[in-house]
Amino acid sequence: MTRAEGFDVYAEDLSVGDRYEFGHHRVAEAELVDFASMWDPQPFHTDVEAAADHGFGGLIASGLHTLAIYQRLLVRRIDGRWKVIAGRKITEVVFVSPVRPGDVLSGSLAVTEVSLDDRGRGRITSDAEVVNDAGVVVLTVTAVMFLRRRGG
Amino acid sequence: MTRAEGFDVYAEDLSVGDRYEFGHHRVAEAELVDFASMWDPQPFHTDVEAAADHGFGGLIASGLHTLAIYQRLLVRRIDGRWKVIAGRKITEVVFVSPVRPGDVLSGSLAVTEVSLDDRGRGRITSDAEVVNDAGVVVLTVTAVMFLRRRGG
Repeated sequence: MTRAEGFDVYAEDLSVGDRYEFGHHRVAEAELVDFASMWDPQPFHTDVEAAADHGFGGLIASGLHTLAIYQRLLVRRIDGRWKVIAGRKITEVVFVSPVRPGDVLSGSLAVTEVSLDDRGRGRITSDAEVVNDAGVVVLTVTAVMFLRRRGG
Repeated sequence: MTRAEGFDVYAEDLSVGDRYEFGHHRVAEAELVDFASMWDPQPFHTDVEAAADHGFGGLIASGLHTLAIYQRLLVRRIDGRWKVIAGRKITEVVFVSPVRPGDVLSGSLAVTEVSLDDRGRGRITSDAEVVNDAGVVVLTVTAVMFLRRRGG
């Protein structure tokens, strides 16, 4: 990321190829179990003993939790500077590899398409990946959001 | 849903066209703000005053939160009976309409593809929609998961 550091980022400030490196998020076992207990209460996410007998040989994070971590890493990275109107859609999420307690997740996002309209908006498409501290990709996300245009 | 009520559901127990009606989930303002504060801390999700000046004229839920509610409604509906191995991917999520504090969400899921493999698994594709209590679709989700086959 070389542009607009510390300044508001409108749709026309983004270009295809812009890349944002995320910070880090450690997936504590308690967070993993708490998230899944509320939003995805399947035993291989919430119960150590049941998870030991499941195909992954231990607790794994809900895919929704991993996706939420991606969103947190992204929002913290853009830190209020992107003039986001709203997310529009996610065109693909792949749960590439399991996320386990203690994993430290990071990753990056690249802008792949910028399309300005005459309604004061820009449609931004991005490809992101989330990796664990062994360098293994755990999640890929392709998403579309709307940002405001300058003066829009 | 007419089959396997109260019994384990393996991949071969699902058929194209099977439909699952979800229960209900009320989106309390505190839940909306708490979820976004952790996972998607953008002011139009977390700050009533900032949200009033945003395009939607008030707080709206994080799309991730709406997606998490979908997952909770689905998991509660299948209630441990589906022999899920893991989610594989989400091929599309559309944030059709904003979700606001007090909305009561429900919806349904339909099985659109069942593909059995010789590794003891079935690949299940589904289309789901989440609707609010005014009958407006707020979210659509197309997803792929693996279930166990009988004896697999």
